[in-house]
Amino acid sequence: MYKVTVFNCSLIEFPKIQNRAGNITPITNLKEVPFEIKRIFYIYDIPGGEDRGGHAHKKCHQILVAVSGSFEVELDDGMLKKTVLINRPYYGLHIPPGIWAKEKSFSSGAICLVLASEVYDEEDYIREYELFKSYKFQ
Amino acid sequence: MYKVTVFNCSLIEFPKIQNRAGNITPITNLKEVPFEIKRIFYIYDIPGGEDRGGHAHKKCHQILVAVSGSFEVELDDGMLKKTVLINRPYYGLHIPPGIWAKEKSFSSGAICLVLASEVYDEEDYIREYELFKSYKFQ
Repeated sequence: MYKVTVFNCSLIEFPKIQNRAGNITPITNLKEVPFEIKRIFYIYDIPGGEDRGGHAHKKCHQILVAVSGSFEVELDDGMLKKTVLINRPYYGLHIPPGIWAKEKSFSSGAICLVLASEVYDEEDYIREYELFKSYKFQ
Repeated sequence: MYKVTVFNCSLIEFPKIQNRAGNITPITNLKEVPFEIKRIFYIYDIPGGEDRGGHAHKKCHQILVAVSGSFEVELDDGMLKKTVLINRPYYGLHIPPGIWAKEKSFSSGAICLVLASEVYDEEDYIREYELFKSYKFQ
């Protein structure tokens, strides 16, 4: 596979439309995000300080947004690691396939919204770090 | 046009996958929602108690989710009105086109996530109530 590195993970600044009755951030397929959104999911009711176990994808691109609160994402391409803090609703972290990612240090009340380029497919997940390493360096 | 009424607006219960490190609600195109998501937007930093002005769409379907906090949606088909309280991240209110909708009584810290079946097109919006009435009863 194409050797994706942590430098291929980027923070996207989305538009923020300000208004008396709240701010709006719009995200359109192939405009603010580089793919068509086939699935979204959001994580909520997360106990403050909690971490979530890491995994990687073979094909699925993901964009992570802290629509409320904050959390950190530890990115790992099998060689290098990078940790990114996400703490604004108008920033999205683009994680291409081939990156081991782990969310940690959720603030109380944090909500993590994920936009995915693929529908759910268990075959697309790599859930063992050793398998990820051999997948990257095969 | 097909006479859509407030009874065509429905509350969808999404899956809620429970986990030690937070709950997840997944939403897949044409699975949990009756359309392909072409655009999403979310409204945040809304002052508590605030209302947002109403409008209708000619073509766009929308699903509203309170990913945090709560708010009410006043639905109006030109004849009947109905008010729905949205206060759980795993419920979505489906609003088909042809409905005048207005969000009100936002709780402090509320976040309104909207999934839309169309990209943004100002031509699709009806922003004057009198125009909406004549559009419905033409």
